[in-house]
Amino acid sequence: MSKGKIRLGLIGGGANSFIGPVHRIAAYMGERYQLVGGVFDVDHKASMEFAEKLELDTSRTYSNIDELIEKESALPAHERIEVVSILTPNFLHYPMAAQLIKAGFHVICEKPITMKASEAVELEALIKEHGVVFCLTHTYTGYPMVRQMKTMIAEGVIGKVQKVDAQYYQGWINPFIHDKEKRSSIWRLDPAKSGQSCCYGDIGVHAFNLIEYTTGLKVEKVLADVNTLYEDNPLDVDGTTLIRIKEGVRGVICASQIATGEENNIKIAVYGDKGGLFWEQEHPTFLTHLKEGEPRQILKPGNPYTSDFAMESTKIAPGHPEGLFDAMGNIYAGTAQAIRGEAYRDGAFPNVEDGVRGMKFIEAVLLSSRNGQTWENI
Amino acid sequence: MSKGKIRLGLIGGGANSFIGPVHRIAAYMGERYQLVGGVFDVDHKASMEFAEKLELDTSRTYSNIDELIEKESALPAHERIEVVSILTPNFLHYPMAAQLIKAGFHVICEKPITMKASEAVELEALIKEHGVVFCLTHTYTGYPMVRQMKTMIAEGVIGKVQKVDAQYYQGWINPFIHDKEKRSSIWRLDPAKSGQSCCYGDIGVHAFNLIEYTTGLKVEKVLADVNTLYEDNPLDVDGTTLIRIKEGVRGVICASQIATGEENNIKIAVYGDKGGLFWEQEHPTFLTHLKEGEPRQILKPGNPYTSDFAMESTKIAPGHPEGLFDAMGNIYAGTAQAIRGEAYRDGAFPNVEDGVRGMKFIEAVLLSSRNGQTWENI
Amino acid sequence: MSKGKIRLGLIGGGANSFIGPVHRIAAYMGERYQLVGGVFDVDHKASMEFAEKLELDTSRTYSNIDELIEKESALPAHERIEVVSILTPNFLHYPMAAQLIKAGFHVICEKPITMKASEAVELEALIKEHGVVFCLTHTYTGYPMVRQMKTMIAEGVIGKVQKVDAQYYQGWINPFIHDKEKRSSIWRLDPAKSGQSCCYGDIGVHAFNLIEYTTGLKVEKVLADVNTLYEDNPLDVDGTTLIRIKEGVRGVICASQIATGEENNIKIAVYGDKGGLFWEQEHPTFLTHLKEGEPRQILKPGNPYTSDFAMESTKIAPGHPEGLFDAMGNIYAGTAQAIRGEAYRDGAFPNVEDGVRGMKFIEAVLLSSRNGQTWENI
Amino acid sequence: MSKGKIRLGLIGGGANSFIGPVHRIAAYMGERYQLVGGVFDVDHKASMEFAEKLELDTSRTYSNIDELIEKESALPAHERIEVVSILTPNFLHYPMAAQLIKAGFHVICEKPITMKASEAVELEALIKEHGVVFCLTHTYTGYPMVRQMKTMIAEGVIGKVQKVDAQYYQGWINPFIHDKEKRSSIWRLDPAKSGQSCCYGDIGVHAFNLIEYTTGLKVEKVLADVNTLYEDNPLDVDGTTLIRIKEGVRGVICASQIATGEENNIKIAVYGDKGGLFWEQEHPTFLTHLKEGEPRQILKPGNPYTSDFAMESTKIAPGHPEGLFDAMGNIYAGTAQAIRGEAYRDGAFPNVEDGVRGMKFIEAVLLSSRNGQTWENI
Repeated sequence: MSKGKIRLGLIGGGANSFIGPVHRIAAYMGERYQLVGGVFDVDHKASMEFAEKLELDTSRTYSNIDELIEKESALPAHERIEVVSILTPNFLHYPMAAQLIKAGFHVICEKPITMKASEAVELEALIKEHGVVFCLTHTYTGYPMVRQMKTMIAEGVIGKVQKVDAQYYQGWINPFIHDKEKRSSIWRLDPAKSGQSCCYGDIGVHAFNLIEYTTGLKVEKVLADVNTLYEDNPLDVDGTTLIRIKEGVRGVICASQIATGEENNIKIAVYGDKGGLFWEQEHPTFLTHLKEGEPRQILKPGNPYTSDFAMESTKIAPGHPEGLFDAMGNIYAGTAQAIRGEAYRDGAFPNVEDGVRGMKFIEAVLLSSRNGQTWENI
Repeated sequence: MSKGKIRLGLIGGGANSFIGPVHRIAAYMGERYQLVGGVFDVDHKASMEFAEKLELDTSRTYSNIDELIEKESALPAHERIEVVSILTPNFLHYPMAAQLIKAGFHVICEKPITMKASEAVELEALIKEHGVVFCLTHTYTGYPMVRQMKTMIAEGVIGKVQKVDAQYYQGWINPFIHDKEKRSSIWRLDPAKSGQSCCYGDIGVHAFNLIEYTTGLKVEKVLADVNTLYEDNPLDVDGTTLIRIKEGVRGVICASQIATGEENNIKIAVYGDKGGLFWEQEHPTFLTHLKEGEPRQILKPGNPYTSDFAMESTKIAPGHPEGLFDAMGNIYAGTAQAIRGEAYRDGAFPNVEDGVRGMKFIEAVLLSSRNGQTWENI
Repeated sequence: MSKGKIRLGLIGGGANSFIGPVHRIAAYMGERYQLVGGVFDVDHKASMEFAEKLELDTSRTYSNIDELIEKESALPAHERIEVVSILTPNFLHYPMAAQLIKAGFHVICEKPITMKASEAVELEALIKEHGVVFCLTHTYTGYPMVRQMKTMIAEGVIGKVQKVDAQYYQGWINPFIHDKEKRSSIWRLDPAKSGQSCCYGDIGVHAFNLIEYTTGLKVEKVLADVNTLYEDNPLDVDGTTLIRIKEGVRGVICASQIATGEENNIKIAVYGDKGGLFWEQEHPTFLTHLKEGEPRQILKPGNPYTSDFAMESTKIAPGHPEGLFDAMGNIYAGTAQAIRGEAYRDGAFPNVEDGVRGMKFIEAVLLSSRNGQTWENI
Repeated sequence: MSKGKIRLGLIGGGANSFIGPVHRIAAYMGERYQLVGGVFDVDHKASMEFAEKLELDTSRTYSNIDELIEKESALPAHERIEVVSILTPNFLHYPMAAQLIKAGFHVICEKPITMKASEAVELEALIKEHGVVFCLTHTYTGYPMVRQMKTMIAEGVIGKVQKVDAQYYQGWINPFIHDKEKRSSIWRLDPAKSGQSCCYGDIGVHAFNLIEYTTGLKVEKVLADVNTLYEDNPLDVDGTTLIRIKEGVRGVICASQIATGEENNIKIAVYGDKGGLFWEQEHPTFLTHLKEGEPRQILKPGNPYTSDFAMESTKIAPGHPEGLFDAMGNIYAGTAQAIRGEAYRDGAFPNVEDGVRGMKFIEAVLLSSRNGQTWENI
């Protein structure tokens, strides 16, 4: 069924990018992608240097997205870039994705999908219309034990879900936020670059996504209290959100970037009427299963007792840890299956629906907060 | 300064009591109390048998609180019971405490202090009027590492507090709640016995108390979404509460008794502009100190680097765990200091103010929830 | 069956004792002992003051053990001290125990039982001859999860034992050992006070005892490499011991008092052909059960799935930690059952056989080490 | 200084290989290698299919190592394979490495380096003679926190080392070892394929290597008790080794493949006179620093407080876990620096000296054990 390696292009992710290596390594890992070109940097000279460093064919290093689309579209189908990963600043995700989709390219897009929910909805329609594959890199869904959690909940192992608690705590904004000059210099706190939200847009939405991913349920409405900490700071850096989920299940999403000293402490607990499941990213190979009336269990990847989905998402024997790159690699692997028209599992990669849900969530959180804590539907 | 052992009486805590041994052991531990009598059981015969089992002087085993007060008051001061621990069902705490205070006895009272906040306020006035010592057993404040946390925050180690997150998750109601007959048979879910609230009255209030205890700050207002899970269940079994603290600090209190498989998972994280502190009861001898820009630290009791307060609350060398009984023992020890007129530290034992705060918190949580998530002042 | 509270005497354990409170609290906990007198201090005045502080009848505070035995023996049986806890320096354990046993007193003795194995053997004979109860306070055997481990292994849950690994690491000698003056001033490093061994006598023997306690197997022979670190230091402060257990099972005991920064890190892992069990004292309420081909389990005290022995050794609901005092309390409780002629479980308290085994182990370790690592039978 | 990507060949690692993906991903990660050809499988057809799957130029897929050497050597220098990774069964490591070195290829070799120590010594001489780079994949040395440990010890953070304890426990042989037929069918237990040792050759040597790597000290002599469990089983599956290190430091290495339920539980503790350091692979992003008289610290990768070496070995922000592939990637990265003649840090990749030390260690362990536990020099 394979038609050789998938030809991958990148927009962004050049020399000093933090996220660039994550995507490239994820693409290399499964040996299903071949990086052939792109626009690595807004500065074309830097872009060319980067291509040379990677020993790419520099004739396919373009000065901008228009050129990329034009020149690649002119190539024969079996040479043409098939999928483009968008790693640019947030405000460019939407227009670039739209342009690429219209031109028939598959897209892998960094989070947030767009600046507004309405744009995500538009992308959803475009994707449907053009029949391309779209992957949104909610990386945490790529961890084997998150996938194990999803399968176990779907199989009823913890019974009917009755309570959900997800948290994403970071502290990285703390050293900047208390100084007026410093905080005004951070792009994440600049609405023009970052969008409507900092804390919820960047990390709260991951917690939200994990909830919908693992439970298979949809959050119906939210009530949020976000905090900018200083009046002259336009964007949220912290906040708690009450959630109501379909079928009467309730829960909470806690997010903060001023939880001083925290790194990437994202965790999720889901409780049902037969048991609970708990996972935290900083110990990603340990999934705790709380069982009503029995000893709690610790599940670890690579073991025969894990689900097929978790097992397929693991490359090494039990007890050898895999990490964030491996999680992203699993998402790239799922996307490759979709691009090649192969069967793939539900949850193999986050898609535009996750993007639409996430943007609606963010907007509902912000609206609720602006309104002084009202319930807002998603 | 000591006038010998403090003569202790008990009301409740007889043969099948869960909490009785906790109090007696706590009283024995510091060797400052002598159990001399009380009303151990509503059934006087059972009460007498219990007294005999403990080899107490059965002439001081009374049939009810009136008799206790009358007979003990008639004894010479140096023989008379000095302090009474109230371990009865919730609805009896208030009237019994009031009666004892009026009669000049010091009181140690199980939580909740009363059924209503107004009653707690009345007790506060009575205590002031009669000049007695009143201890409310918020046991978790007795753990050395909680006291260490309080001291460190007071000393500014984590700087100005900016975010607070406390949680108390249990799962014990899960096996009962889903069956109509079972859930109607639990006294905790019967308002007549349990009071206005189950989850917040029993455990949410502990999380609230830990916040005020460790930070020294007062929660100003709350917005809560509590859950009874079934319409015919009158009391909350779960719920999340947004909090606003004086000086603009925000946070969250999560509480649940349907977090299936959880036991007594109470934890607290406090973040300031210089660092954070994290403690959880099920690993009580480990206090995590997150430091801005430095490795995180783990503090353990009994070490010279701990505060005087923590050190005085530790009876054994580092690495030998102490537990819940030891925490309660520390509270009894602090109460003994107050009874004997000795100097004692701020926080040595929870008192009526904690009780008033707690009841106001519970009522605000319930009101907010009934009103469909309004902000309510405490 | 009970004949009232057991009358307890203490030798040692006065004002500045570290271990005194552990024993008294353990005795109070189960409400089966009444402290009536003893020799609390070599200085009789200090002893009297201590008795007064505890509000004991000072007529039963004796100036020495001879007086205690004489005067108490003269009392009527129902008033007489029944059991004496020996908390004196190591070299006094044996003569005092012997004297008390001969006089018909039950004895609770701190570790090490004697200075030499031969003395322990003599005690064993004396105990048999005089029909008294003898308890040796290997405290760690009192933890509910250690007892759970013993039961599970006995019931075959992990199958046939094939590998054992026990460790006791402390660091407390490190700050003293590197300075000649300091190290010569520590009583633990003075053979006259401490006995033949420091590290193995004090802590290695605990690891050994945990192995024999939990597995029910006997260590057959040992080969050891102990370290004094400095030539002028007469006693071991560190060392590793290879062990061979009956039926061909092998393992290792690691002990150190120069494991800088360690506190009381005693742990034990036992592996059988169906699974393994792992426990560590600094997280005493978590027992890990590694199962062949299944997720690992975490067992916690107070849960219905624990053994009767573990459940009886737990005083509180699951998730409320108990610690070292509670472990010692369980040992005192078992001893009380024996003293009162009640049925008690195998392992309810460590006895003279454990003492004999421990002393033989220590001597074999030292001999092996002196001989340049020979195998020595226990 | 770079001369483009390093041309990499592989021997072994084809379709069903467990270790193949680890090496390829490690090579891709740093974007310094280009896989150009090799001998992927003993079966040439399978080898060709594998090359096609990876979209390699099949003209450089060779039927055996002789052909590879001949044909590649005939290519111009700037096209020729520069380094070959040897992923074949153990007994082929030595002859293939020797052949490649003699032909002037750099070599990356899976562990064990050879079947005998004498062969490793020969390789060492050959490498010197031919001036090639040789990397032995002791993967655990690639973890950032292991490198942090090495730096901290070198910088004297824990003072003079006085005690070392390393362990590698697995349980994977347990399900096979107890059945005669099953155990005779495992290649790891077949001396012809596996070499002189199973447990020590495969995993004990990793623990040994971690000790020498992190401390910078050399183990002088060993005394070991290895266990085959059954008489008809020719190779060790378990064993404990006492070690004496230069300058009088002692320690222990524990290894087992019958520690039922363990996965890849390799850990190391090193204690000095100022503190201790502890790391375990299954939680690789947490390094515990025990400090004399201070709270223990937890160091995590990616933080500014980590050493340059650790920081260079980390690709992502703190709190995002990296795992085994990333560790191997770091080793490939160090090897690339050496191949390109760039400066590289001490410890950037394990080399032939590590291989010689490891083989001598294994032989000394086996000799000691055969001799009934004698001390053997390394």
